Amino acid sequence: MPYFDAASAAPLHPVAREALLASLDEGWADPARLYREGRRGRLLLDAAREAAAEAVGCRPDELVFTPSGTQAVHRGVAGALAARRRVGRRLLHSAVEHSSVLHAAEVHEAAGGTRAELAVDRTGRVAADEAAAALTPDTALVCLQSANHEVGTEQPVEEVAALCQEAGVPLLVDAAQSLPWGPVPGAWSLLAASAHKWGGPPGVGLLAVRKGTRFAPQGPYDERESGRSPGFENIPGIVAAAASLRALRAGPETMDEAARLRRLVERIRTRVPELVPDVEMVGDPVHRLPHLVTFSCLYVDGETLLHELDRAGFSVSSGSSCTSSTLTPSHVLRAMGVLSEGNVRVSLPYGTAEADVDRFLEVLPQVVRSVRERLGVPPGPEAVAASAGGAAAAPAPDEEPDEPAGLVVDSLGRRCPIPVIELAKVIGQVPVGGTVTVLSDDEAARQDIPAWCAMREQEYVGERSAERGAAYVVRRRV
Amino acid sequence: MPYFDAASAAPLHPVAREALLASLDEGWADPARLYREGRRGRLLLDAAREAAAEAVGCRPDELVFTPSGTQAVHRGVAGALAARRRVGRRLLHSAVEHSSVLHAAEVHEAAGGTRAELAVDRTGRVAADEAAAALTPDTALVCLQSANHEVGTEQPVEEVAALCQEAGVPLLVDAAQSLPWGPVPGAWSLLAASAHKWGGPPGVGLLAVRKGTRFAPQGPYDERESGRSPGFENIPGIVAAAASLRALRAGPETMDEAARLRRLVERIRTRVPELVPDVEMVGDPVHRLPHLVTFSCLYVDGETLLHELDRAGFSVSSGSSCTSSTLTPSHVLRAMGVLSEGNVRVSLPYGTAEADVDRFLEVLPQVVRSVRERLGVPPGPEAVAASAGGAAAAPAPDEEPDEPAGLVVDSLGRRCPIPVIELAKVIGQVPVGGTVTVLSDDEAARQDIPAWCAMREQEYVGERSAERGAAYVVRRRV
Repeated sequence: MPYFDAASAAPLHPVAREALLASLDEGWADPARLYREGRRGRLLLDAAREAAAEAVGCRPDELVFTPSGTQAVHRGVAGALAARRRVGRRLLHSAVEHSSVLHAAEVHEAAGGTRAELAVDRTGRVAADEAAAALTPDTALVCLQSANHEVGTEQPVEEVAALCQEAGVPLLVDAAQSLPWGPVPGAWSLLAASAHKWGGPPGVGLLAVRKGTRFAPQGPYDERESGRSPGFENIPGIVAAAASLRALRAGPETMDEAARLRRLVERIRTRVPELVPDVEMVGDPVHRLPHLVTFSCLYVDGETLLHELDRAGFSVSSGSSCTSSTLTPSHVLRAMGVLSEGNVRVSLPYGTAEADVDRFLEVLPQVVRSVRERLGVPPGPEAVAASAGGAAAAPAPDEEPDEPAGLVVDSLGRRCPIPVIELAKVIGQVPVGGTVTVLSDDEAARQDIPAWCAMREQEYVGERSAERGAAYVVRRRV
Repeated sequence: MPYFDAASAAPLHPVAREALLASLDEGWADPARLYREGRRGRLLLDAAREAAAEAVGCRPDELVFTPSGTQAVHRGVAGALAARRRVGRRLLHSAVEHSSVLHAAEVHEAAGGTRAELAVDRTGRVAADEAAAALTPDTALVCLQSANHEVGTEQPVEEVAALCQEAGVPLLVDAAQSLPWGPVPGAWSLLAASAHKWGGPPGVGLLAVRKGTRFAPQGPYDERESGRSPGFENIPGIVAAAASLRALRAGPETMDEAARLRRLVERIRTRVPELVPDVEMVGDPVHRLPHLVTFSCLYVDGETLLHELDRAGFSVSSGSSCTSSTLTPSHVLRAMGVLSEGNVRVSLPYGTAEADVDRFLEVLPQVVRSVRERLGVPPGPEAVAASAGGAAAAPAPDEEPDEPAGLVVDSLGRRCPIPVIELAKVIGQVPVGGTVTVLSDDEAARQDIPAWCAMREQEYVGERSAERGAAYVVRRRV
């Protein structure tokens, strides 16, 4: 049963399993104690710290273990901001950071700090020159991920780190997604990562704070882990995490495996648009993680798609609104301005069989077709536009004077992807140059109607307030 | 090699080991995901939560898992205080709480809150009527451990919980030490515990917040664990922790084992004072944990004692100042007003062999004797006092008018147990009714000179400021 969601959590690496078992009997005692069981634990912890530091590219005394990547980010952001309070209270981060960074930023803002977002382009990438321009003198900290967790786009971390260094502002890199594939280059100041992303066990993260970086740990003091991560150390987990990271870096296997997975991902990137109509490939085609690929399927809801893929034996994830507890599309896809409906993220774990990828490519077109059929979408990219007569189509009752008369589609109360399907169904009835207005109270429509226009070369006029939800106006161009 | 420090960390319970291994292959995926690997993880997590909640005596939806007992306490204290900010900002806790509670209290105080300590008697026990008197209307939270981690004394939690309930103030119980032996009775509101104390793996704590208790999680939001404990769940660790706790509670074994360990501890409590001269048994003789016993040996430094016991194969811990990184005696022993020098805590893990306890009783007297010999202490309780002539003894140069002339012992620059040894050496030279003044800059002297007086039935007159350190005045009574 192929598991294609390594970006959420990778299955335990065999080396991690072995190291965990070995250290269960050696690493349970308190490493702060001086008796033999404690000394044994301390030796294991020290060795794990050295191995992890080498893989990260820092000194052992710069690295502490945390109970998760999330906590590494939370504590890293809070400690760096607090240490620079006198310089300024402005936090600058990209619009596509992991939620752990965004939640840390919210706390900072609630406590009186300010924040600013670095926008990304349609591939999800930050522009280094925009980062340079945003580095105001009161900037206390910059957060930039090494690579995006949803679309795989790599960020220009090395360039931004150099800019930050020049400006004297620390850079915190969330390296959760990229660390399995290699160290983060450049003059970053802080780095956070999570072991279960590289095949280590859950329950282990790491936070590196390079010497010379001012850092003031927040929250209650605890003497463990240099005062930077409270709580009794999970030594068996830490040993397993470090051993598997070291194993990934030890030989040429990782580079070979990265290249192999990159070829499989390239196959998906090439074949999916050929096999499935109305698909948008998402993320940077070149600057990307080796194992991760994301695409969105028009006229499909992500939840059903995931469910059907699961039934067919494939475990993937999605940034579609219907798959989130808040019913809002992923903030990453929103910041990129790309389609969110029918979104699928495929992230291949180490060792993924080529045959499984081929079978995925075999299954996916059928699955998408069957979901579309159930939603009443006729097959073929042109067919949707050609199938006349959305039931709700009617002349707009309340045209604004500067707009030509047009149709109104009432999709109130209907969830993604229905508003976009309704729009596609009526666009053929609109004369070229005429408009259609979609009424929708679904949060995904705000993102997906403009994205549909871009894909279909229609003009997105804009959004108007409405009594309920919003009114999205589209002008037919082709 | 007998390990007698279960109160720091217990070796992994066989059931925990088995459950951990089984869940490594089933519990690595994200339990928030809807595909099969995620659903499997969710099932494991839900089952673990039910088992742990049953053992704690709460509802499953009242319990979250944390990465450590320390974090359970930190988050519990912060969340309970924040939720009651409008009522008041006063935190009341016993003087002998675990450092995790004290550190959480420090943060509260630094943020503008207030705190008050409940004193303990010489056995380390809080008086319920004093707690009642201290429950002022602006008290936001009370923290009381179920049993003390250093001396084993059980607190009157059930009584204090009833008082708190009546006053409408939540009570947070740090149950880290007692939970292995049974649920905490009474109407507590919050409870924290740590799995590695009951033979679960390190990396797992738990926090229960009973329905009706106002709670506002602090720090960055995270959707995991009801928003109360951020970070990806360590499911294999959680499963192992819950399985071992359930195993401890499943049959009559725990009660039998508790009774068996209680007998072994009783043997230590009875035999040590018979076998080792000048020993003070510490903690409540009746209201106590079954597996833990603490005593202090006069004229011995804890660090050497621990080292020698380790060489003899016994792993124990100590609250003596010389074994702490800050060179201050344990705050627990200080609050109790008992001797801190030569302190030894023995905490027997589940399954401790009787023969190991007997061997400990065989080894201990020799070890103490040899440490005392190296410190120049003549053997026998009376011999110390009889061995005349502390080199530094001299008439006090600067007597205050209301004090009779006396000796001065200059122990400046000497660490515990030297000041007490010097005092004991010269007391025989002082006429009954006369005084001796010990000059010392060792923090332990402040605690151990009065404790020595209590043990020796001499009068501790008090402390005076001195140019360096302090001057401790003792009047000979016997």
